[in-house]
Amino acid sequence: MSSFALDPSRLPIRIQDFDPADAGGRDKERIKAETVELRGRIGKLQELLYANANQSLLILLQGMDTSGKDGASRMVLESVNPAGVQTSAFKAPNTEERAHDYLWRVHRRMPERGYIGVFNRSHYEEVLIVRVDNLVPEKRWKKRYAQINAFEEMLVAEGTIMLKFFLHISKEEQKQRLEDRIADPHKNWKFQSSDLLARAKWADYMRAYEDVLNETSTAHAPWHIVPADKKWVRDFIVAKTVVDALETLKLDWPKPKEDLSKFVIE
Amino acid sequence: MSSFALDPSRLPIRIQDFDPADAGGRDKERIKAETVELRGRIGKLQELLYANANQSLLILLQGMDTSGKDGASRMVLESVNPAGVQTSAFKAPNTEERAHDYLWRVHRRMPERGYIGVFNRSHYEEVLIVRVDNLVPEKRWKKRYAQINAFEEMLVAEGTIMLKFFLHISKEEQKQRLEDRIADPHKNWKFQSSDLLARAKWADYMRAYEDVLNETSTAHAPWHIVPADKKWVRDFIVAKTVVDALETLKLDWPKPKEDLSKFVIE
Repeated sequence: MSSFALDPSRLPIRIQDFDPADAGGRDKERIKAETVELRGRIGKLQELLYANANQSLLILLQGMDTSGKDGASRMVLESVNPAGVQTSAFKAPNTEERAHDYLWRVHRRMPERGYIGVFNRSHYEEVLIVRVDNLVPEKRWKKRYAQINAFEEMLVAEGTIMLKFFLHISKEEQKQRLEDRIADPHKNWKFQSSDLLARAKWADYMRAYEDVLNETSTAHAPWHIVPADKKWVRDFIVAKTVVDALETLKLDWPKPKEDLSKFVIE
Repeated sequence: MSSFALDPSRLPIRIQDFDPADAGGRDKERIKAETVELRGRIGKLQELLYANANQSLLILLQGMDTSGKDGASRMVLESVNPAGVQTSAFKAPNTEERAHDYLWRVHRRMPERGYIGVFNRSHYEEVLIVRVDNLVPEKRWKKRYAQINAFEEMLVAEGTIMLKFFLHISKEEQKQRLEDRIADPHKNWKFQSSDLLARAKWADYMRAYEDVLNETSTAHAPWHIVPADKKWVRDFIVAKTVVDALETLKLDWPKPKEDLSKFVIE
Protein backbone atom coordinates (compact mmCIF):
# COMPACT_ATOMS: atom_id res chain seq x y z
CA MET A 1 0.00 0.00 0.00
CA SER A 2 1.28 3.47 -0.83
CA SER A 3 2.36 5.68 2.00
CA PHE A 4 -0.47 8.12 1.35
CA ALA A 5 -3.24 5.53 1.39
CA LEU A 6 -5.70 5.35 4.25
CA ASP A 7 -5.03 2.20 6.23
CA PRO A 8 -8.32 0.29 6.57
CA SER A 9 -7.21 -1.02 9.98
CA ARG A 10 -6.92 2.53 11.31
CA LEU A 11 -10.40 3.77 10.51
CA PRO A 12 -12.45 5.78 11.20
CA ILE A 13 -10.59 8.98 10.46
CA ARG A 14 -11.87 12.51 11.03
CA ILE A 15 -11.50 14.84 8.08
CA GLN A 16 -10.71 17.77 10.38
CA ASP A 17 -7.49 16.01 11.42
CA PHE A 18 -6.12 16.45 7.90
CA ASP A 19 -4.65 19.85 7.09
CA PRO A 20 -5.33 20.83 3.44
CA ALA A 21 -2.20 23.02 3.51
CA ASP A 22 0.05 20.30 4.92
CA ALA A 23 3.32 20.04 3.03
CA GLY A 24 4.86 17.46 5.34
CA GLY A 25 7.85 19.72 5.91
CA ARG A 26 8.88 19.27 2.30
CA ASP A 27 10.91 21.75 0.32
CA LYS A 28 8.95 23.21 -2.59
CA GLU A 29 11.73 23.39 -5.17
CA ARG A 30 13.03 19.94 -4.36
CA ILE A 31 9.56 18.42 -4.56
CA LYS A 32 8.86 20.12 -7.88
CA ALA A 33 12.06 18.64 -9.31
CA GLU A 34 11.14 15.25 -7.91
CA THR A 35 7.68 15.50 -9.50
CA VAL A 36 9.26 16.15 -12.90
CA GLU A 37 11.30 12.99 -12.45
CA LEU A 38 8.23 11.02 -11.33
CA ARG A 39 6.31 12.17 -14.39
CA GLY A 40 9.04 10.82 -16.62
CA ARG A 41 8.73 7.48 -14.87
CA ILE A 42 4.94 7.46 -15.29
CA GLY A 43 5.51 7.86 -19.03
CA LYS A 44 7.81 4.85 -19.17
CA LEU A 45 5.65 2.72 -16.88
CA GLN A 46 2.59 3.43 -18.97
CA GLU A 47 4.36 2.10 -22.07
CA LEU A 48 5.02 -1.12 -20.18
CA LEU A 49 1.42 -1.29 -18.96
CA TYR A 50 0.24 -0.84 -22.55
CA ALA A 51 2.68 -3.36 -23.97
CA ASN A 52 1.69 -6.02 -21.46
CA ALA A 53 -2.04 -5.21 -21.65
CA ASN A 54 -3.12 -7.44 -18.81
CA GLN A 55 -3.90 -4.83 -16.18
CA SER A 56 -5.36 -1.35 -16.12
CA LEU A 57 -4.95 1.61 -13.81
CA LEU A 58 -7.79 3.84 -12.70
CA ILE A 59 -7.04 7.27 -11.26
CA LEU A 60 -10.23 8.45 -9.62
CA LEU A 61 -10.36 12.09 -8.56
CA GLN A 62 -12.89 13.54 -6.17
CA GLY A 63 -12.94 16.87 -4.40
CA MET A 64 -14.84 20.11 -4.06
CA ASP A 65 -14.97 22.58 -6.96
CA THR A 66 -11.55 24.14 -7.69
CA SER A 67 -9.77 21.41 -5.72
CA GLY A 68 -7.66 20.66 -8.77
CA LYS A 69 -9.19 17.58 -10.35
CA ASP A 70 -8.45 18.93 -13.83
CA GLY A 71 -5.00 20.09 -12.82
CA ALA A 72 -4.04 16.77 -11.26
CA SER A 73 -5.20 14.74 -14.24
CA ARG A 74 -3.38 17.05 -16.61
CA MET A 75 -0.19 16.84 -14.57
CA VAL A 76 -0.10 13.07 -14.51
CA LEU A 77 -1.09 12.60 -18.11
CA GLU A 78 1.05 15.18 -19.82
CA SER A 79 4.00 12.81 -19.78
CA VAL A 80 2.02 9.85 -21.03
CA ASN A 81 1.08 8.65 -24.51
CA PRO A 82 -2.48 10.00 -24.81
CA ALA A 83 -3.45 7.05 -26.99
CA GLY A 84 -3.10 4.88 -23.88
CA VAL A 85 -5.32 7.01 -21.66
CA GLN A 86 -9.09 7.18 -21.37
CA THR A 87 -10.40 10.20 -19.49
CA SER A 88 -13.97 10.63 -18.30
CA ALA A 89 -15.61 13.58 -16.63
CA PHE A 90 -18.86 12.64 -14.92
CA LYS A 91 -21.34 15.48 -14.83
CA ALA A 92 -25.01 15.33 -13.88
CA PRO A 93 -26.32 12.12 -15.45
CA ASN A 94 -28.29 12.49 -18.68
CA THR A 95 -31.64 10.87 -19.42
CA GLU A 96 -30.19 7.61 -20.70
CA GLU A 97 -27.82 7.34 -17.75
CA ARG A 98 -30.56 8.05 -15.24
CA ALA A 99 -32.58 5.22 -16.75
CA HIS A 100 -29.96 2.74 -15.48
CA ASP A 101 -28.49 1.89 -12.10
CA TYR A 102 -25.91 4.42 -10.88
CA LEU A 103 -22.89 2.21 -11.65
CA TRP A 104 -23.85 1.62 -15.28
CA ARG A 105 -22.30 4.72 -16.82
CA VAL A 106 -19.16 4.35 -14.72
CA HIS A 107 -18.70 0.70 -15.57
CA ARG A 108 -18.75 1.27 -19.31
CA ARG A 109 -16.07 3.95 -18.98
CA MET A 110 -13.62 1.72 -17.10
CA PRO A 111 -10.23 1.58 -18.86
CA GLU A 112 -9.53 -1.55 -20.84
CA ARG A 113 -6.48 -3.65 -20.00
CA GLY A 114 -3.25 -1.87 -20.83
CA TYR A 115 -4.84 1.55 -20.37
CA ILE A 116 -4.85 4.27 -17.75
CA GLY A 117 -8.28 5.68 -16.97
CA VAL A 118 -8.81 9.05 -15.33
CA PHE A 119 -12.15 9.79 -13.71
CA ASN A 120 -12.95 13.39 -12.94
CA ARG A 121 -15.71 12.72 -10.39
CA SER A 122 -17.18 9.22 -10.34
CA HIS A 123 -19.78 6.93 -8.79
CA TYR A 124 -18.90 8.57 -5.47
CA GLU A 125 -21.10 11.51 -6.44
CA GLU A 126 -23.94 9.08 -5.78
CA VAL A 127 -23.16 9.26 -2.05
CA LEU A 128 -22.02 12.91 -2.10
CA ILE A 129 -24.21 15.38 -3.99
CA VAL A 130 -27.00 12.81 -4.04
CA ARG A 131 -26.88 12.68 -0.25
CA VAL A 132 -26.34 16.38 0.39
CA ASP A 133 -29.12 17.40 -1.97
CA ASN A 134 -31.45 14.57 -0.91
CA LEU A 135 -31.78 13.23 -4.43
CA VAL A 136 -32.56 9.68 -3.31
CA PRO A 137 -33.81 8.43 0.07
CA GLU A 138 -31.20 7.76 2.76
CA LYS A 139 -32.02 4.07 2.99
CA ARG A 140 -31.09 3.77 -0.65
CA TRP A 141 -27.82 5.72 -0.73
CA LYS A 142 -26.67 4.09 2.53
CA LYS A 143 -26.60 0.73 0.77
CA ARG A 144 -24.30 2.12 -1.85
CA TYR A 145 -21.11 1.99 0.22
CA ALA A 146 -21.28 -1.80 0.33
CA GLN A 147 -22.37 -1.96 -3.31
CA ILE A 148 -19.44 0.20 -4.35
CA ASN A 149 -17.01 -1.88 -2.31
CA ALA A 150 -18.24 -5.06 -3.96
CA PHE A 151 -18.05 -3.45 -7.42
CA GLU A 152 -14.52 -2.23 -6.85
CA GLU A 153 -13.42 -5.54 -5.38
CA MET A 154 -14.52 -7.26 -8.59
CA LEU A 155 -12.67 -4.69 -10.69
CA VAL A 156 -9.45 -5.16 -8.73
CA ALA A 157 -9.72 -8.96 -8.86
CA GLU A 158 -10.13 -8.70 -12.63
CA GLY A 159 -6.98 -6.63 -13.10
CA THR A 160 -7.74 -2.97 -12.39
CA ILE A 161 -5.55 -1.01 -10.01
CA MET A 162 -7.79 1.50 -8.24
CA LEU A 163 -6.20 4.72 -7.06
CA LYS A 164 -8.81 6.89 -5.38
CA PHE A 165 -7.78 10.44 -4.52
CA PHE A 166 -9.68 12.90 -2.37
CA LEU A 167 -8.27 16.32 -3.21
CA HIS A 168 -8.70 18.10 0.09
CA ILE A 169 -8.79 21.89 -0.08
CA SER A 170 -9.79 24.38 2.57
CA LYS A 171 -12.81 26.61 2.29
CA GLU A 172 -10.44 29.61 2.37
CA GLU A 173 -8.39 28.33 -0.54
CA GLN A 174 -11.56 27.71 -2.56
CA LYS A 175 -12.56 31.33 -1.91
CA GLN A 176 -9.25 32.48 -3.41
CA ARG A 177 -9.67 30.29 -6.45
CA LEU A 178 -13.26 31.30 -7.11
CA GLU A 179 -12.36 34.98 -6.78
CA ASP A 180 -9.57 34.36 -9.21
CA ARG A 181 -12.05 32.98 -11.74
CA ILE A 182 -14.12 36.12 -11.37
CA ALA A 183 -11.16 38.48 -11.61
CA ASP A 184 -9.24 36.87 -14.47
CA PRO A 185 -10.94 37.24 -17.90
CA HIS A 186 -9.13 34.08 -19.05
CA LYS A 187 -10.82 32.16 -16.26
CA ASN A 188 -14.28 33.74 -16.33
CA TRP A 189 -15.65 30.89 -18.42
CA LYS A 190 -14.77 28.41 -15.65
CA PHE A 191 -16.94 30.24 -13.12
CA GLN A 192 -20.40 28.86 -12.55
CA SER A 193 -22.70 30.43 -10.05
CA SER A 194 -23.84 26.90 -9.19
CA ASP A 195 -20.41 26.34 -7.58
CA LEU A 196 -21.60 28.66 -4.85
CA LEU A 197 -24.49 26.33 -4.02
CA ALA A 198 -22.13 23.50 -3.13
CA ARG A 199 -19.89 25.93 -1.27
CA ALA A 200 -22.82 27.02 0.88
CA LYS A 201 -23.18 23.38 1.99
CA TRP A 202 -19.49 22.93 2.80
CA ALA A 203 -20.05 21.27 6.20
CA ASP A 204 -22.57 18.83 4.73
CA TYR A 205 -20.10 17.89 2.02
CA MET A 206 -17.28 17.35 4.51
CA ARG A 207 -19.54 15.04 6.50
CA ALA A 208 -20.44 13.14 3.34
CA TYR A 209 -16.77 12.90 2.30
CA GLU A 210 -15.77 11.68 5.76
CA ASP A 211 -18.28 8.85 5.50
CA VAL A 212 -17.06 7.98 2.02
CA LEU A 213 -13.46 7.82 3.22
CA ASN A 214 -14.37 5.66 6.20
CA GLU A 215 -16.86 3.39 4.47
CA THR A 216 -15.00 2.75 1.22
CA SER A 217 -11.31 2.67 2.14
CA THR A 218 -10.78 -1.02 1.63
CA ALA A 219 -7.63 -3.10 1.41
CA HIS A 220 -8.13 -3.49 -2.35
CA ALA A 221 -9.07 0.15 -3.01
CA PRO A 222 -8.06 2.55 -0.25
CA TRP A 223 -8.58 6.30 -0.48
CA HIS A 224 -5.70 8.73 -0.58
CA ILE A 225 -6.28 12.04 1.16
CA VAL A 226 -4.29 14.62 -0.76
CA PRO A 227 -3.64 18.02 0.87
CA ALA A 228 -4.56 20.16 -2.13
CA ASP A 229 -4.18 23.78 -1.05
CA LYS A 230 -0.68 23.71 -2.54
CA LYS A 231 -0.61 22.51 -6.12
CA TRP A 232 2.97 21.27 -5.90
CA VAL A 233 2.09 19.06 -2.91
CA ARG A 234 -1.00 17.74 -4.69
CA ASP A 235 0.90 16.96 -7.88
CA PHE A 236 3.73 15.27 -6.03
CA ILE A 237 1.48 12.98 -3.99
CA VAL A 238 -0.60 11.94 -6.98
CA ALA A 239 2.48 11.31 -9.15
CA LYS A 240 4.27 9.40 -6.39
CA THR A 241 1.24 7.21 -5.74
CA VAL A 242 0.84 6.38 -9.43
CA VAL A 243 4.53 5.50 -9.80
CA ASP A 244 4.50 3.35 -6.66
CA ALA A 245 1.43 1.49 -7.83
CA LEU A 246 2.84 0.79 -11.29
CA GLU A 247 6.27 -0.18 -9.98
CA THR A 248 4.70 -2.74 -7.69
CA LEU A 249 3.64 -4.62 -10.83
CA LYS A 250 7.30 -5.17 -11.79
CA LEU A 251 6.43 -5.00 -15.46
CA ASP A 252 8.94 -5.93 -18.13
CA TRP A 253 8.78 -5.81 -21.91
CA PRO A 254 6.67 -8.76 -23.04
CA LYS A 255 8.45 -11.59 -24.79
CA PRO A 256 7.35 -12.04 -28.41
CA LYS A 257 4.84 -14.85 -28.93
CA GLU A 258 6.56 -15.94 -32.13
CA ASP A 259 10.22 -16.56 -32.89
CA LEU A 260 11.04 -13.21 -34.49
CA SER A 261 14.35 -14.41 -35.92
CA LYS A 262 12.44 -16.35 -38.55
CA PHE A 263 11.04 -13.18 -40.13
CA VAL A 264 12.92 -11.58 -42.98
CA ILE A 265 11.52 -8.27 -44.21
CA GLU A 266 11.52 -8.40 -47.99
CA MET B 1 -6.90 25.94 -46.67
CA SER B 2 -3.57 24.96 -45.14
CA SER B 3 -0.54 24.91 -47.39
CA PHE B 4 -0.20 21.15 -47.06
CA ALA B 5 -3.79 20.37 -48.04
CA LEU B 6 -4.58 18.80 -51.40
CA ASP B 7 -6.34 21.37 -53.53
CA PRO B 8 -9.58 19.81 -54.86
CA SER B 9 -9.28 21.86 -58.05
CA ARG B 10 -5.91 20.24 -58.83
CA LEU B 11 -6.95 16.62 -58.68
CA PRO B 12 -6.23 13.88 -59.58
CA ILE B 13 -2.81 13.51 -58.04
CA ARG B 14 -0.48 10.53 -58.46
CA ILE B 15 0.96 9.18 -55.23
CA GLN B 16 4.29 8.44 -56.92
CA ASP B 17 4.79 12.17 -57.41
CA PHE B 18 5.09 12.64 -53.65
CA ASP B 19 8.45 11.80 -52.11
CA PRO B 20 8.08 10.27 -48.62
CA ALA B 21 11.53 11.59 -47.71
CA ASP B 22 10.82 15.13 -48.90
CA ALA B 23 11.92 17.73 -46.37
CA GLY B 24 11.18 20.72 -48.58
CA GLY B 25 14.72 21.95 -48.15
CA ARG B 26 14.07 22.61 -44.49
CA ASP B 27 16.74 22.65 -41.82
CA LYS B 28 16.22 19.87 -39.28
CA GLU B 29 17.25 21.72 -36.14
CA ARG B 30 15.30 24.83 -37.04
CA ILE B 31 12.18 22.83 -37.83
CA LYS B 32 12.44 20.90 -34.56
CA ALA B 33 12.60 24.18 -32.64
CA GLU B 34 9.66 25.50 -34.60
CA THR B 35 7.67 22.35 -33.83
CA VAL B 36 8.26 22.86 -30.11
CA GLU B 37 6.88 26.35 -30.47
CA LEU B 38 3.88 25.11 -32.49
CA ARG B 39 3.10 22.53 -29.83
CA GLY B 40 2.93 25.25 -27.22
CA ARG B 41 0.45 27.09 -29.39
CA ILE B 42 -1.67 23.96 -29.84
CA GLY B 43 -1.89 23.77 -26.04
CA LYS B 44 -3.17 27.33 -25.76
CA LEU B 45 -5.53 27.03 -28.72
CA GLN B 46 -7.04 23.87 -27.31
CA GLU B 47 -7.90 25.69 -24.07
CA LEU B 48 -9.76 28.29 -26.15
CA LEU B 49 -11.53 25.60 -28.16
CA TYR B 50 -12.60 23.95 -24.91
CA ALA B 51 -13.68 27.20 -23.29
CA ASN B 52 -15.82 28.18 -26.27
CA ALA B 53 -17.18 24.68 -26.82
CA ASN B 54 -18.93 25.38 -30.08
CA GLN B 55 -16.60 23.60 -32.47
CA SER B 56 -14.53 20.44 -32.45
CA LEU B 57 -11.37 19.37 -34.22
CA LEU B 58 -10.80 15.93 -35.68
CA ILE B 59 -7.28 14.77 -36.48
CA LEU B 60 -7.64 11.69 -38.64
CA LEU B 61 -4.49 9.66 -39.23
CA GLN B 62 -4.11 7.07 -41.96
CA GLY B 63 -1.01 5.36 -43.26
CA MET B 64 0.71 2.02 -43.63
CA ASP B 65 2.00 0.16 -40.55
CA THR B 66 4.92 1.99 -38.89
CA SER B 67 4.07 5.22 -40.73
CA GLY B 68 3.91 6.99 -37.38
CA LYS B 69 0.20 7.30 -36.57
CA ASP B 70 0.91 6.72 -32.88
CA GLY B 71 3.92 9.01 -32.95
CA ALA B 72 2.07 11.85 -34.63
CA SER B 73 -0.89 11.70 -32.27
CA ARG B 74 1.42 11.60 -29.28
CA MET B 75 3.41 14.57 -30.55
CA VAL B 76 0.38 16.78 -31.06
CA LEU B 77 -1.34 15.82 -27.86
CA GLU B 78 1.53 15.90 -25.41
CA SER B 79 1.17 19.63 -25.03
CA VAL B 80 -2.59 19.54 -24.67
CA ASN B 81 -4.86 19.03 -21.66
CA PRO B 82 -5.72 15.33 -22.03
CA ALA B 83 -9.13 15.93 -20.49
CA GLY B 84 -10.02 17.81 -23.68
CA VAL B 85 -8.96 15.06 -26.06
CA GLN B 86 -10.74 11.93 -27.18
CA THR B 87 -8.54 9.38 -28.92
CA SER B 88 -9.83 6.37 -30.82
CA ALA B 89 -7.90 3.56 -32.45
CA PHE B 90 -9.99 1.65 -34.95
CA LYS B 91 -8.98 -1.97 -35.26
CA ALA B 92 -10.84 -4.76 -37.02
CA PRO B 93 -14.53 -4.20 -36.19
CA ASN B 94 -16.00 -6.41 -33.47
CA THR B 95 -19.28 -8.33 -33.72
CA GLU B 96 -21.47 -5.44 -32.56
CA GLU B 97 -19.74 -3.00 -34.90
CA ARG B 98 -20.05 -5.35 -37.86
CA ALA B 99 -23.78 -5.57 -37.22
CA HIS B 100 -24.12 -1.87 -38.16
CA ASP B 101 -23.27 0.21 -41.19
CA TYR B 102 -19.54 1.03 -41.46
CA LEU B 103 -19.92 4.65 -40.31
CA TRP B 104 -21.74 3.78 -37.08
CA ARG B 105 -18.73 3.10 -34.87
CA VAL B 106 -16.89 6.11 -36.24
CA HIS B 107 -19.82 8.46 -35.75
CA ARG B 108 -20.22 7.63 -32.08
CA ARG B 109 -16.53 8.34 -31.46
CA MET B 110 -16.63 11.84 -32.98
CA PRO B 111 -15.35 14.48 -30.54
CA GLU B 112 -18.00 16.58 -28.87
CA ARG B 113 -17.89 20.36 -29.23
CA GLY B 114 -14.90 21.88 -27.48
CA TYR B 115 -12.85 18.72 -27.88
CA ILE B 116 -10.05 17.47 -30.07
CA GLY B 117 -10.54 13.96 -31.42
CA VAL B 118 -7.69 11.84 -32.72
CA PHE B 119 -8.49 8.89 -34.96
CA ASN B 120 -5.80 6.28 -35.44
CA ARG B 121 -7.23 4.73 -38.60
CA SER B 122 -10.86 5.49 -39.41
CA HIS B 123 -13.75 4.86 -41.79
CA TYR B 124 -11.18 5.05 -44.59
CA GLU B 125 -10.16 1.48 -43.78
CA GLU B 126 -13.51 0.62 -45.39
CA VAL B 127 -12.10 1.60 -48.77
CA LEU B 128 -8.54 0.46 -48.03
CA ILE B 129 -8.11 -2.95 -46.39
CA VAL B 130 -11.71 -3.77 -47.30
CA ARG B 131 -10.88 -3.15 -50.95
CA VAL B 132 -7.43 -4.72 -50.99
CA ASP B 133 -8.61 -7.86 -49.21
CA ASN B 134 -11.91 -8.03 -51.11
CA LEU B 135 -14.00 -7.96 -47.94
CA VAL B 136 -17.04 -6.45 -49.65
CA PRO B 137 -17.95 -6.36 -53.35
CA GLU B 138 -16.50 -3.53 -55.44
CA LYS B 139 -19.91 -2.10 -56.31
CA ARG B 140 -20.49 -1.58 -52.60
CA TRP B 141 -17.17 -0.04 -51.56
CA LYS B 142 -17.13 2.19 -54.64
CA LYS B 143 -20.24 3.95 -53.35
CA ARG B 144 -18.48 4.72 -50.11
CA TYR B 145 -16.43 7.64 -51.41
CA ALA B 146 -19.59 9.67 -52.01
CA GLN B 147 -21.14 8.43 -48.77
CA ILE B 148 -18.05 9.47 -46.82
CA ASN B 149 -17.98 12.87 -48.50
CA ALA B 150 -21.61 13.47 -47.57
CA PHE B 151 -21.00 12.31 -44.00
CA GLU B 152 -17.99 14.57 -43.58
CA GLU B 153 -19.77 17.52 -45.16
CA MET B 154 -22.49 17.21 -42.52
CA LEU B 155 -19.89 17.00 -39.75
CA VAL B 156 -18.13 20.13 -40.98
CA ALA B 157 -21.39 22.04 -41.39
CA GLU B 158 -22.27 21.11 -37.80
CA GLY B 159 -19.02 22.44 -36.37
CA THR B 160 -16.27 19.85 -36.79
CA ILE B 161 -12.96 20.81 -38.35
CA MET B 162 -11.70 17.77 -40.26
CA LEU B 163 -7.95 17.39 -40.65
CA LYS B 164 -7.17 14.24 -42.60
CA PHE B 165 -3.54 13.17 -42.77
CA PHE B 166 -2.05 10.50 -44.97
CA LEU B 167 1.31 9.62 -43.43
CA HIS B 168 3.27 8.66 -46.49
CA ILE B 169 6.29 6.42 -45.88
CA SER B 170 8.38 4.53 -48.36
CA LYS B 171 8.54 0.78 -48.50
CA GLU B 172 12.26 1.01 -47.67
CA GLU B 173 11.64 3.08 -44.54
CA GLN B 174 9.00 0.58 -43.40
CA LYS B 175 11.55 -2.19 -43.81
CA GLN B 176 13.90 -0.33 -41.45
CA ARG B 177 11.20 0.21 -38.89
CA LEU B 178 9.96 -3.37 -38.97
CA GLU B 179 13.51 -4.68 -38.62
CA ASP B 180 13.95 -2.35 -35.70
CA ARG B 181 10.92 -3.90 -34.00
CA ILE B 182 12.45 -7.33 -34.45
CA ALA B 183 15.91 -6.29 -33.27
CA ASP B 184 14.97 -4.12 -30.27
CA PRO B 185 13.59 -6.14 -27.30
CA HIS B 186 11.70 -3.00 -26.17
CA LYS B 187 9.87 -2.96 -29.48
CA ASN B 188 9.31 -6.69 -29.99
CA TRP B 189 5.77 -6.45 -28.67
CA LYS B 190 4.86 -4.00 -31.44
CA PHE B 191 5.76 -6.50 -34.13
CA GLN B 192 2.93 -8.49 -35.61
CA SER B 193 3.57 -10.94 -38.37
CA SER B 194 0.27 -9.77 -39.89
CA ASP B 195 2.01 -6.47 -40.73
CA LEU B 196 3.89 -8.43 -43.37
CA LEU B 197 0.65 -9.37 -45.10
CA ALA B 198 -0.20 -5.72 -45.77
CA ARG B 199 3.42 -5.06 -46.75
CA ALA B 200 3.23 -7.81 -49.35
CA LYS B 201 0.33 -5.93 -50.96
CA TRP B 202 2.10 -2.56 -50.98
CA ALA B 203 1.24 -1.67 -54.58
CA ASP B 204 -2.43 -2.52 -54.03
CA TYR B 205 -2.50 -0.30 -50.96
CA MET B 206 -0.88 2.60 -52.80
CA ARG B 207 -3.51 2.31 -55.51
CA ALA B 208 -6.27 2.28 -52.89
CA TYR B 209 -4.76 5.29 -51.09
CA GLU B 210 -4.42 7.18 -54.35
CA ASP B 211 -8.12 6.71 -55.03
CA VAL B 212 -8.98 7.78 -51.47
CA LEU B 213 -6.93 10.96 -51.85
CA ASN B 214 -8.49 11.79 -55.19
CA GLU B 215 -12.07 10.83 -54.37
CA THR B 216 -12.35 12.33 -50.89
CA SER B 217 -10.23 15.49 -50.95
CA THR B 218 -13.08 17.95 -50.80
CA ALA B 219 -13.14 21.66 -50.10
CA HIS B 220 -14.59 21.03 -46.64
CA ALA B 221 -12.28 18.14 -45.78
CA PRO B 222 -9.16 17.92 -47.91
CA TRP B 223 -6.43 15.36 -47.36
CA HIS B 224 -2.91 16.33 -46.31
CA ILE B 225 -0.14 14.17 -47.72
CA VAL B 226 2.59 14.12 -45.09
CA PRO B 227 6.07 12.93 -46.11
CA ALA B 228 6.65 10.62 -43.14
CA ASP B 229 10.05 9.01 -43.68
CA LYS B 230 11.52 11.72 -41.44
CA LYS B 231 9.75 12.02 -38.12
CA TRP B 232 10.70 15.67 -37.68
CA VAL B 233 9.10 16.57 -41.03
CA ARG B 234 5.98 14.58 -40.17
CA ASP B 235 5.63 16.18 -36.75
CA PHE B 236 6.16 19.67 -38.11
CA ILE B 237 3.57 19.37 -40.87
CA VAL B 238 0.93 17.91 -38.58
CA ALA B 239 1.57 20.51 -35.86
CA LYS B 240 1.57 23.38 -38.35
CA THR B 241 -1.67 22.22 -39.93
CA VAL B 242 -3.40 21.92 -36.55
CA VAL B 243 -2.23 25.39 -35.48
CA ASP B 244 -3.29 26.95 -38.78
CA ALA B 245 -6.72 25.36 -38.57
CA LEU B 246 -7.32 26.49 -35.00
CA GLU B 247 -6.00 30.00 -35.60
CA THR B 248 -8.41 30.44 -38.50
CA LEU B 249 -11.21 30.27 -35.92
CA LYS B 250 -9.93 33.46 -34.23
CA LEU B 251 -11.09 32.20 -30.85
CA ASP B 252 -11.12 34.45 -27.82
CA TRP B 253 -11.98 33.82 -24.19
CA PRO B 254 -15.76 33.63 -23.91
CA LYS B 255 -17.52 36.48 -22.16
CA PRO B 256 -19.28 35.40 -18.97
CA LYS B 257 -23.03 34.88 -19.36
CA GLU B 258 -23.73 36.51 -16.02
CA ASP B 259 -22.47 39.75 -14.51
CA LEU B 260 -19.68 38.32 -12.39
CA SER B 261 -19.20 41.52 -10.39
CA LYS B 262 -22.40 40.75 -8.50
CA PHE B 263 -20.94 37.61 -6.91
CA VAL B 264 -19.27 37.87 -3.53
CA ILE B 265 -17.62 34.71 -2.27
CA GLU B 266 -18.58 34.29 1.38
